[in-house]
Amino acid sequence: MWHQQEIKLLERKRGIHLVTDEILSQLKQLPSINIGILHLFIKHSSASLCINENADPDVRHDVEAHFNHFVPENAAYYQHTLEGSDDMPAHIKSITIGSSVAIPIANGRLNLGTWQGIYLGEHRNHGGSRTIVATIQGEYTTSPV
Amino acid sequence: MWHQQEIKLLERKRGIHLVTDEILSQLKQLPSINIGILHLFIKHSSASLCINENADPDVRHDVEAHFNHFVPENAAYYQHTLEGSDDMPAHIKSITIGSSVAIPIANGRLNLGTWQGIYLGEHRNHGGSRTIVATIQGEYTTSPV
Amino acid sequence: MWHQQEIKLLERKRGIHLVTDEILSQLKQLPSINIGILHLFIKHSSASLCINENADPDVRHDVEAHFNHFVPENAAYYQHTLEGSDDMPAHIKSITIGSSVAIPIANGRLNLGTWQGIYLGEHRNHGGSRTIVATIQGEYTTSPV
Repeated sequence: MWHQQEIKLLERKRGIHLVTDEILSQLKQLPSINIGILHLFIKHSSASLCINENADPDVRHDVEAHFNHFVPENAAYYQHTLEGSDDMPAHIKSITIGSSVAIPIANGRLNLGTWQGIYLGEHRNHGGSRTIVATIQGEYTTSPV
Repeated sequence: MWHQQEIKLLERKRGIHLVTDEILSQLKQLPSINIGILHLFIKHSSASLCINENADPDVRHDVEAHFNHFVPENAAYYQHTLEGSDDMPAHIKSITIGSSVAIPIANGRLNLGTWQGIYLGEHRNHGGSRTIVATIQGEYTTSPV
Repeated sequence: MWHQQEIKLLERKRGIHLVTDEILSQLKQLPSINIGILHLFIKHSSASLCINENADPDVRHDVEAHFNHFVPENAAYYQHTLEGSDDMPAHIKSITIGSSVAIPIANGRLNLGTWQGIYLGEHRNHGGSRTIVATIQGEYTTSPV
């Protein structure tokens, strides 16, 4: 069984955001999968997806602060500067964090740890709405109607 | 063909550990797969999985040293500090290294390079036993009995 | 439908290189897939694969400059030094950027964003030709001939 759809996320400000519920609410096929993989791919080179702690918003604050510190704006060696001081760091953050996540599905649900959720890394100051490709593959719990 | 199981890894101290053999010894279905993918997902937000050099233990030492240096404890901008000075760096290391790996399967074996193995990044001082979800998908070499 | 093949990339100098066309030109099965995933895995622990901006070569220059700055050669804490000053940083860059990418397939093409391409990170000074395992899985647009 294969299913693919594009999801447009709500526009968010620069930072790290928990988007588990926004994504799951749009994946109607998930409950019918017994064993499978959900693959999420972001179609932008200045934003990212990853898995991390789903409870304390301070974690997201600190992740954003860390990457702002260790992927600086206006580094002396940057040549790609015409799109703004946030653009080149956004590309590097996207590469470091990653463009996709793949999450196991079991019994119609994501088989995440208790404290795990899906993060969107919005690395531009004004990134706009971001598009994700969600691909579900797996075997049905029962034959589809 | 789909198979999914959870693997509890032995408890390890903080650092980078080679866990290829511990994982493979528990995947009884692997030899029957002709072409496929093994997906490993760690159900924790303060540990990580990646692929790297399988021979010299000094490489694992140096990877641990690097991330300790470039993901510092007690950074002035951390707000999430109640769970200990190793906790927030552990989340950032998990995001930087990643929560999952996907490895091609060919002829009943992982199609890794000669010098590649599977690393567990244990980023907490006392992380305990870690749980991995192993999902195997692929086509059988012969029809299953 | 499963297909797997190994692709030998042309030898490249140390740096970040756009390899989308070199890879796609060798994947003859792609046009026949309706929905699927292309998984690319590099069989080396001192090189990497990721997705990022496909237009301005300055972005690749700046990514290389960033990682050279934040994954230094000759760090005082490195123990693995016998293979040259570029070797240990190459392992860390490979871990940070990643060994594989998984890209959705839709209607016989990679479902990438307009500005996305596939990057090879060649992290050794003289890495030679690199081997990638390409695994295509998905459903056919029509029954194969």
